[in-house]
Amino acid sequence: MIEQRLADLLKRVAAGEVTPDDALRRLGSYPVEALEFAHVDHLRPLLQGFPEVVFCEGKTPEQAVEICASLERSSGMFLATRASAPMREALRTRFPAAQINERARTVFLEPDPAPAPSGGGTILVVTAGTSDQPVAEEAAVVARAMGNRVETLLDVGVAGIHRLLRRSDALQRAAVVIVVAGMDGALASVVGGLVRVPVIAVPTSVGYGASFGGVAALLAMLNSCASGVVVVNIDNGFGAAAAASRINHRREPE
Amino acid sequence: MIEQRLADLLKRVAAGEVTPDDALRRLGSYPVEALEFAHVDHLRPLLQGFPEVVFCEGKTPEQAVEICASLERSSGMFLATRASAPMREALRTRFPAAQINERARTVFLEPDPAPAPSGGGTILVVTAGTSDQPVAEEAAVVARAMGNRVETLLDVGVAGIHRLLRRSDALQRAAVVIVVAGMDGALASVVGGLVRVPVIAVPTSVGYGASFGGVAALLAMLNSCASGVVVVNIDNGFGAAAAASRINHRREPE
Amino acid sequence: MIEQRLADLLKRVAAGEVTPDDALRRLGSYPVEALEFAHVDHLRPLLQGFPEVVFCEGKTPEQAVEICASLERSSGMFLATRASAPMREALRTRFPAAQINERARTVFLEPDPAPAPSGGGTILVVTAGTSDQPVAEEAAVVARAMGNRVETLLDVGVAGIHRLLRRSDALQRAAVVIVVAGMDGALASVVGGLVRVPVIAVPTSVGYGASFGGVAALLAMLNSCASGVVVVNIDNGFGAAAAASRINHRREPE
Amino acid sequence: MIEQRLADLLKRVAAGEVTPDDALRRLGSYPVEALEFAHVDHLRPLLQGFPEVVFCEGKTPEQAVEICASLERSSGMFLATRASAPMREALRTRFPAAQINERARTVFLEPDPAPAPSGGGTILVVTAGTSDQPVAEEAAVVARAMGNRVETLLDVGVAGIHRLLRRSDALQRAAVVIVVAGMDGALASVVGGLVRVPVIAVPTSVGYGASFGGVAALLAMLNSCASGVVVVNIDNGFGAAAAASRINHRREPE
Amino acid sequence: MIEQRLADLLKRVAAGEVTPDDALRRLGSYPVEALEFAHVDHLRPLLQGFPEVVFCEGKTPEQAVEICASLERSSGMFLATRASAPMREALRTRFPAAQINERARTVFLEPDPAPAPSGGGTILVVTAGTSDQPVAEEAAVVARAMGNRVETLLDVGVAGIHRLLRRSDALQRAAVVIVVAGMDGALASVVGGLVRVPVIAVPTSVGYGASFGGVAALLAMLNSCASGVVVVNIDNGFGAAAAASRINHRREPE
Amino acid sequence: MIEQRLADLLKRVAAGEVTPDDALRRLGSYPVEALEFAHVDHLRPLLQGFPEVVFCEGKTPEQAVEICASLERSSGMFLATRASAPMREALRTRFPAAQINERARTVFLEPDPAPAPSGGGTILVVTAGTSDQPVAEEAAVVARAMGNRVETLLDVGVAGIHRLLRRSDALQRAAVVIVVAGMDGALASVVGGLVRVPVIAVPTSVGYGASFGGVAALLAMLNSCASGVVVVNIDNGFGAAAAASRINHRREPE
Amino acid sequence: MIEQRLADLLKRVAAGEVTPDDALRRLGSYPVEALEFAHVDHLRPLLQGFPEVVFCEGKTPEQAVEICASLERSSGMFLATRASAPMREALRTRFPAAQINERARTVFLEPDPAPAPSGGGTILVVTAGTSDQPVAEEAAVVARAMGNRVETLLDVGVAGIHRLLRRSDALQRAAVVIVVAGMDGALASVVGGLVRVPVIAVPTSVGYGASFGGVAALLAMLNSCASGVVVVNIDNGFGAAAAASRINHRREPE
Amino acid sequence: MIEQRLADLLKRVAAGEVTPDDALRRLGSYPVEALEFAHVDHLRPLLQGFPEVVFCEGKTPEQAVEICASLERSSGMFLATRASAPMREALRTRFPAAQINERARTVFLEPDPAPAPSGGGTILVVTAGTSDQPVAEEAAVVARAMGNRVETLLDVGVAGIHRLLRRSDALQRAAVVIVVAGMDGALASVVGGLVRVPVIAVPTSVGYGASFGGVAALLAMLNSCASGVVVVNIDNGFGAAAAASRINHRREPE
Repeated sequence: MIEQRLADLLKRVAAGEVTPDDALRRLGSYPVEALEFAHVDHLRPLLQGFPEVVFCEGKTPEQAVEICASLERSSGMFLATRASAPMREALRTRFPAAQINERARTVFLEPDPAPAPSGGGTILVVTAGTSDQPVAEEAAVVARAMGNRVETLLDVGVAGIHRLLRRSDALQRAAVVIVVAGMDGALASVVGGLVRVPVIAVPTSVGYGASFGGVAALLAMLNSCASGVVVVNIDNGFGAAAAASRINHRREPE
Repeated sequence: MIEQRLADLLKRVAAGEVTPDDALRRLGSYPVEALEFAHVDHLRPLLQGFPEVVFCEGKTPEQAVEICASLERSSGMFLATRASAPMREALRTRFPAAQINERARTVFLEPDPAPAPSGGGTILVVTAGTSDQPVAEEAAVVARAMGNRVETLLDVGVAGIHRLLRRSDALQRAAVVIVVAGMDGALASVVGGLVRVPVIAVPTSVGYGASFGGVAALLAMLNSCASGVVVVNIDNGFGAAAAASRINHRREPE
Repeated sequence: MIEQRLADLLKRVAAGEVTPDDALRRLGSYPVEALEFAHVDHLRPLLQGFPEVVFCEGKTPEQAVEICASLERSSGMFLATRASAPMREALRTRFPAAQINERARTVFLEPDPAPAPSGGGTILVVTAGTSDQPVAEEAAVVARAMGNRVETLLDVGVAGIHRLLRRSDALQRAAVVIVVAGMDGALASVVGGLVRVPVIAVPTSVGYGASFGGVAALLAMLNSCASGVVVVNIDNGFGAAAAASRINHRREPE
Repeated sequence: MIEQRLADLLKRVAAGEVTPDDALRRLGSYPVEALEFAHVDHLRPLLQGFPEVVFCEGKTPEQAVEICASLERSSGMFLATRASAPMREALRTRFPAAQINERARTVFLEPDPAPAPSGGGTILVVTAGTSDQPVAEEAAVVARAMGNRVETLLDVGVAGIHRLLRRSDALQRAAVVIVVAGMDGALASVVGGLVRVPVIAVPTSVGYGASFGGVAALLAMLNSCASGVVVVNIDNGFGAAAAASRINHRREPE
Repeated sequence: MIEQRLADLLKRVAAGEVTPDDALRRLGSYPVEALEFAHVDHLRPLLQGFPEVVFCEGKTPEQAVEICASLERSSGMFLATRASAPMREALRTRFPAAQINERARTVFLEPDPAPAPSGGGTILVVTAGTSDQPVAEEAAVVARAMGNRVETLLDVGVAGIHRLLRRSDALQRAAVVIVVAGMDGALASVVGGLVRVPVIAVPTSVGYGASFGGVAALLAMLNSCASGVVVVNIDNGFGAAAAASRINHRREPE
Repeated sequence: MIEQRLADLLKRVAAGEVTPDDALRRLGSYPVEALEFAHVDHLRPLLQGFPEVVFCEGKTPEQAVEICASLERSSGMFLATRASAPMREALRTRFPAAQINERARTVFLEPDPAPAPSGGGTILVVTAGTSDQPVAEEAAVVARAMGNRVETLLDVGVAGIHRLLRRSDALQRAAVVIVVAGMDGALASVVGGLVRVPVIAVPTSVGYGASFGGVAALLAMLNSCASGVVVVNIDNGFGAAAAASRINHRREPE
Repeated sequence: MIEQRLADLLKRVAAGEVTPDDALRRLGSYPVEALEFAHVDHLRPLLQGFPEVVFCEGKTPEQAVEICASLERSSGMFLATRASAPMREALRTRFPAAQINERARTVFLEPDPAPAPSGGGTILVVTAGTSDQPVAEEAAVVARAMGNRVETLLDVGVAGIHRLLRRSDALQRAAVVIVVAGMDGALASVVGGLVRVPVIAVPTSVGYGASFGGVAALLAMLNSCASGVVVVNIDNGFGAAAAASRINHRREPE
Repeated sequence: MIEQRLADLLKRVAAGEVTPDDALRRLGSYPVEALEFAHVDHLRPLLQGFPEVVFCEGKTPEQAVEICASLERSSGMFLATRASAPMREALRTRFPAAQINERARTVFLEPDPAPAPSGGGTILVVTAGTSDQPVAEEAAVVARAMGNRVETLLDVGVAGIHRLLRRSDALQRAAVVIVVAGMDGALASVVGGLVRVPVIAVPTSVGYGASFGGVAALLAMLNSCASGVVVVNIDNGFGAAAAASRINHRREPE
């Protein structure tokens, strides 16, 4: 059965006995599980280092549970984002060990035993204001789930620039910085100019009027006058964390 | 003849012999001069403290010259903005004493004798980058023409925040600050948080791609996380200076 | 304890015994209070003449109350805007002396004793129609809280231009005018041409169809044919008042 | 030959010997002339009271001349708009009697003898500024060609509202008002509130930055707070005149 | 008392004993009634031939009732649009004689006795589909209230062009045509080509996806390939009717 | 009675005894049924091969039922899309034999007896993710109702390109492919490059932030780098199926 | 050499000796030719029935010539679109037998001998106005090059609906209709309602002001009230023809 | 002199004798050089590992040369992007050793001796089509200048997915992938799903019509269904390279 074989391979990869590339070669055909409404891609852990993350929006609670169950069977873990309250409840019932973050709307079933962080450095999540916190927490939960150490620095928007400058120690320690900001998105540019490491900017839909649901911040970040700033979609804490994790799990040069 | 009477009244207002309100009462009818293609509003100096400024875009050089001549006859001065090279040449020929700024595309005929600055404090014009300079110069020329002391602080964008912070003396001295910035427009927010005086933000069309000709900076400025920041149209150095001058010529409380 | 020291300094500044700059120098380090989810910036009264205003959108009622309490402890006052009904109720319970304006969605705890207006002149708030009133009231509440005298002139949109013209006395008296208008935003241009003082235009989201939630008014105001008109974000009565207060508290030239 | 028959019918309609409806009945089939690249609709004079107007943009000078010649053969007249300089030259060469307006970019071959104005009242064309003049002239040329009396009132934008109010006589005389304005488009609302007759607003692409080529004025006009204001496309002086002429040639109730 | 005097004058104007211009002269000052939250413009019937229409959106039911009552006192009638269900109920309670149209969301208190239609011809309201009906009914109610004869032609969208062509009799009878259409807005162009009279196009917010709440129809109508088509705001049945009524009450040439 | 005559003709056309063109000729006048609020076009089955489909948005349940009943009387069948829950219930009550798909929000009353598929090949509906399923089901229901064989291939988005490539057999079998995708819409381009048959792309409103309710996918699909991809409106599963059915019912060359 | 082998296979496929699928199987590896700046995909004729078409925009004339030469070597033909004047000249020089259409900006080197049309029916290209002709010609050239019979029907926009209706014979004959229209794009909806076959709508950038370079027509077409209308990008005559050709070369059901 | 001291420090940092942090501490004040029109930030090499890059758009050739000269004096190198032809010529004249890339519009003066690549792995630049090449070359030039090994994979757009798949070796070798694509931007999603390393997507302005100068590709990339994809501004090859270099110069965990 494909799930068992995959689970075994994944364990041996985790134990360092088999390289990912070898594992891929050993799997003759592409391991996809066809549910009625979805194709669960069990190859993802080998191809990308982490199982498929379940984006819950637009799914029914039943669909979300079924996909998570399929992932749990093959990899012993799952991570679900944008889970509505009923979905979180349904997942909690089925998987009592799952860790639920209400503000971030995430559900995470950690492998047992929990692995040590595998990323090289620390991912720092910075927010401009209190209202950016839900997106920041999504980023933090996802980054931790993907095997990274995470720190946070909250409510340091540029209208009071000294709040940021007095914490430059935290900035200097980070291997990657995720900047979460709505409204004018200016924090990304200032941080981008203060550090040497990659900066991932997440515009949030915080604001009103001509913020257009985060478009003002998105445009500002795309036009950042600091080089080395890259951008993800509005409110996309998940995407920022996934990219940061890829950066923090640098593939060694051959 | 209306122009003579207006010119006399304006001189007496300037000399403090007549208040603007008295002058308005003495003019029985509304003094508008009808050219073939324009109505020149000779009342503006009394109503708003400065003659109508000639916005040259969309006019022919001949029209621009004729309107400037009409203003010169009634008030002894004029200020033209957005003057194309042929217009600047035509105005230079007709009014050899006019001051022409090629980068700002302005033509200014100063009254003779030149009056002392009448505004209360100093207007500080700040730019994020070298490319914002033409707009900043338009603002500076207009502000000076309207009777204000002007200082500038150039190329202090937030990607190198220390360039700005080390000049906080200039910021603290100003009575009004005009921030000229394109791209992410972030400078307005940072300056807005550093000063106690009004900040007028001018987005510029500097940038490319998703800057959309200055829209990114405009939106960022409208959504500034610093309070007390107000905004004018893209590249509108003139408008920023006019507003700054109104602020700097505060009407005394009665 | 930093709050006590700040409170003392603020009183001495208010009493004129210490200048703001001296006060800043006496504070060795930057006084920021770190709550779990926010950094409260206790330096704001000295830097900008008024404590941080609490923008409640995107916060929970508990967060809003905690931030207000922190401000009350250090400065004896707070001002909260965009407070939802439950927030207003929570703040009323905790601070029975707070003044609540349901239409403006503001909560203001005045210092005791209430200081006399410190601004130089009168801020006039003008609206185009009845539906613009909530935004106008937010502006009025904020401007008064920041130490300004405020007058209002309501429902004088330009479709009946005589309603405005017959009240030109009020216009002529003002030191700053805030124009609040949705739909075509035309009132800002007409007022801008009638007064000599700064005009701050606030587009409102009043309208339907191609008003696009206030974008039509915003664009019209940014393109005002009257010079000296500056603009803030859609529905941003707070921002208009903050800017007007900065203008009305002109720093004296040195 | 169809053109001859049409020309005869049109003359008899003009002479009042035949009603348009009778004329339509007498034409058995639909009279369309197929050129290689266009179908010239010779029925238009009967259906809509005026021959097809040739919109020249996107056509070659040769195509424009050929279409105009076809119209001239059947109706003894033509009107071409948006004619580029080479087109105007080509038409002038072919039709020396044609009236060319360089600023409006129109070419008009009047019927011989020129008919008296057939519209009931006067169409008044009002502009906000000098730069709106080319569009206003297109409107005036077209309206006159379609048999209307036309008056103009230029450069009366609302930043100097008295320029408009002192000419209320002209406003009160008009049967239809066409308001041509760029930037904030506010003039349409003010005029709409001052008259009882239909107001057709023409936004112009005059302006810069956030005027977005006339979009700001277009939106303001669509959201006019004055009722009875209708709108045509940006810079569409022709369309405004065509609509005004339909209004001014009211069909009598049966 | 101003209301009584106005009411008397209006009756005499209606009776033809006094011309509107004479009536205006007899009123020395401008009759505006200042409620707490609104200025009711009692001069509107003389200036524009119909009392101010109450646009209810953004008002409270109490405000709506108070404004309607003020109008009823001075003119014996009122018309309210966009009245929510609670508003309609409040107005029904206060004015049992008012005519309420639930689909159009209008409340109309007719003068007693009801005047005969004063407009010259018939206004025809045409819709593309069943979903456009609420906007069409608003237009019909308003046009009838303003003294016009109204006919309707429903559900004749261009996807089945024969439904329209077989009713060309109704089109030919009309003095003004109002075309109400969402989605592609194509009906306005087809009608514009079939009639000789003015066509007022009303885009509706009917549609989904890339209709963007009526923007697709609005743009199509502004770009109509038929001349003589003018446009009002999305869903603005009221505005279309007001303009149509101005057209249908043509001022006689002097 | 027209409905009886139409029903007879349709049966004879279905039986191959009469060609559609003959049937059209036998109907002297255009058969439209005028309900109070709608014109039901009974000619549609002959003109376009399928009765008018009832688009329920913006209609009341009563209107939907009445239109469906009219169609059932003349053609023995109907298809309703975008039916809300109450509409579906009302139609179920009136037509117990109707087939209701809750996810697709469709109600279909099949003719009795059900005809065999008349389209030439198979229409394949492909989705990028689970959330695209409701739109895909609407397409599938409509395509089957219009007489086509339909297959589906779900959740094969390009982030795991192998999920698609391993199913190229299904792609190669299809006569037309409908690609349903939100977010980046990239699946349409990849499929367009893999097949030789027409590809109809349906952007869905799945996504968040800068997906702008499906605009991102719509633009990507319009700019597909694969030739032969055509696009319908966002979430318009119905339109895609109608076009696919037209393609699959190719008219034979003459 | 791969090109020779491909050329042989293509000939045998054209001769019916080998099926495309067999030909694909015989080619062991994927035949791509790597130029310095491009990968020429020689498999396209087998996969999609026609060689890669060279889209010239953004390429240098040298690059265009080199890619065309590569295609000519392997398949004996090429088709280039959007070729600038210098490119057309360069291609004419290198390939004197190429057919150049200046208005459509296409260069086509036909195989020798020219094959008979392989598509099943006739593709009809319809335009709304004379200015849409360049796009229509691009569509016609491409469709003919891809083996289809093509007819055209020009300048039949809906403002004169009778021009279209009198040519319904041409509409009824077509197997696919391509509708090319700018401005309001209404022609697509009217044609969609008149035919039973697929309709591909091509918005053109013809128009001005709020046509936004073809966006108005694009949106109108996406929102067509006629079912069965599909849309391609603005001015994309090529894409419409490619899709029409796919439809007209229907794969036979298995 | 500051430049000398900086140059010395930079050399010692490059030689590994001094850490960047030590170097920063040794510089007492912030080293900014004030030109007339710009502030050159000489601290950038220490803060961010590379001297300020000169973005030439909006500058005059003289300004560009002067800034480059200032950088060359302090750091022995410079890199200029978006240099127009006259600028490139002016820089070539002044710095004959500079490396000029005409297609990328870059001018690079390499330090002498040229340092070995300092980045850990290889940056792979992938393009969808030939027209994306200028942006890709800018990225490659910048990445190499910043000390990285660079490979390219050109013209592998997803319409011929096999062109990409057959080169998966190159993808698997890379430490960071930069995907440069216009039109539908789909390549970023496909690549994002094939690799485990960070993917930086650069939308290009290649395309026409509804590509809106690269907006379609930008939105598609922001909405990529592959996780780990981050985005920079349209045509911003420089920004992508700067971010990729930050990633490739990972700071070692402490």
